[in-house]
Amino acid sequence: MSSVPLSRCCIHTITTRPLSLAAAVEIYRDAGFAGITVWRDALATAGIKESVRILALSGLKVVSLCRGGFFPATDEVDRRHALDDNRRAIDEAAAIGAPLVVLVCGAVPGMPLREARKQIEASIAALIPHARQAGVKLAIEPLHPMYADTRSAVVTVSQANDMVERLASPQVGVTIDVYHTWWDDRLESEIARSGRLGAIFSFHVCDWRTPLRDILNDRGLMGEGCIPVRQIRSWVERAGFDGMIEMEIFSNQYWQENQREFVSRIRSAFIEHV
Amino acid sequence: MSSVPLSRCCIHTITTRPLSLAAAVEIYRDAGFAGITVWRDALATAGIKESVRILALSGLKVVSLCRGGFFPATDEVDRRHALDDNRRAIDEAAAIGAPLVVLVCGAVPGMPLREARKQIEASIAALIPHARQAGVKLAIEPLHPMYADTRSAVVTVSQANDMVERLASPQVGVTIDVYHTWWDDRLESEIARSGRLGAIFSFHVCDWRTPLRDILNDRGLMGEGCIPVRQIRSWVERAGFDGMIEMEIFSNQYWQENQREFVSRIRSAFIEHV
Repeated sequence: MSSVPLSRCCIHTITTRPLSLAAAVEIYRDAGFAGITVWRDALATAGIKESVRILALSGLKVVSLCRGGFFPATDEVDRRHALDDNRRAIDEAAAIGAPLVVLVCGAVPGMPLREARKQIEASIAALIPHARQAGVKLAIEPLHPMYADTRSAVVTVSQANDMVERLASPQVGVTIDVYHTWWDDRLESEIARSGRLGAIFSFHVCDWRTPLRDILNDRGLMGEGCIPVRQIRSWVERAGFDGMIEMEIFSNQYWQENQREFVSRIRSAFIEHV
Repeated sequence: MSSVPLSRCCIHTITTRPLSLAAAVEIYRDAGFAGITVWRDALATAGIKESVRILALSGLKVVSLCRGGFFPATDEVDRRHALDDNRRAIDEAAAIGAPLVVLVCGAVPGMPLREARKQIEASIAALIPHARQAGVKLAIEPLHPMYADTRSAVVTVSQANDMVERLASPQVGVTIDVYHTWWDDRLESEIARSGRLGAIFSFHVCDWRTPLRDILNDRGLMGEGCIPVRQIRSWVERAGFDGMIEMEIFSNQYWQENQREFVSRIRSAFIEHV
């Protein structure tokens, strides 16, 4: 399988968290990347208006906004706040020209996961009209089961597909992230199912380092770990996905390094291992 | 649902790792626990002969030996060494009167999980005659997917059940551990399936703390986290399990505390939350 042209290479601003949006954009463009996924912290720091200007001049395609979600809550008021915040995220996405908001769906420690998923599904259903009006899609991103306590009650592509099927809206699909899903023996078949649903809205790559030094921020460059990234890409593409491939690498280690040099290593890892 | 009598309460020596086997046994008995699962490091430190004497005098029922497994390897020699080591574990179990060896099946970073599972299944098959002769059973313990890189390519009860079905030996069953499996939406139905296979050989409890401070050694006491321990116990019992309930709590924090006081807290947690 051949490597992916840089014209399909997208990077998440969180990957180079120490950089301002303006500096990030310049370095990504110099590296030859074609797309950018913007995290809300980067937007908040630069301000929406300035961000719009930076992104419009960047020559980079804005692929998505990360992230909405965190829907479940033990009381109605908090659930409404979450919905309001997600409507703001949708508006921000529309403002910067991002066609997609990625949803980290949320979980509450001690709330039964089934109940959390019910709340998640109801919340996404409630957002569909606003998303449609804004011309923005929503992607359910299943997270690794190690985040089932606080970050996502949706832990498999199967569960995300079930929701997509029931919500039955062209506005709602899934994000496949190799880090969260590589361990799953149903991954290939569930990716195929996402494809049949026309629901593969985005695809994230990085790698799983051994040993994992931090449960949150120790992602590896593609090729540094045990995830068969290229194989999973082949499944996603066989299922019809031909969009940008997004590099989302949280790493306490890499954030401490020179970010321009880091981006150059990312570029090589993309060419060699994706 | 009522609490479990202490006559079904078993504890793993690793839970009080700082204690010698002799000291552990005394404290467990004082707490009113009825069973003990012995880890091989405790055996190695005390020596088999002395361990046999300590356990015989303890009045505690030896529930299992932890742990065998770690089968997959990239070359034939290492796979043979793993089998030899597992035969020794079976012999040790027989020596101390443990009817069961729990298997942490293993994984090799970068080896496809499917290939690792093939090797695991072949290795268990190869051990069955030795286990039968020794009068020792083998339990496949699915581990949490966050350990799929190095500790276990078997990450769901579903996969363990599949193996049990194919191996079709009364010698081979599963261990259900709430920590490894609570996130799984198929857990209830797969526990029921294990029950139909007559294959629930053991049941481990602890809790999942939020935030998780260490990927290996930050397990909580039952009731300290988000796992519905009592609900999962009800599933296991509905599937026919009426054996000892084993407390297996690795914790850097708790190992630093006074172990007699810790055991007394474990006792309360067992009564209140299991």
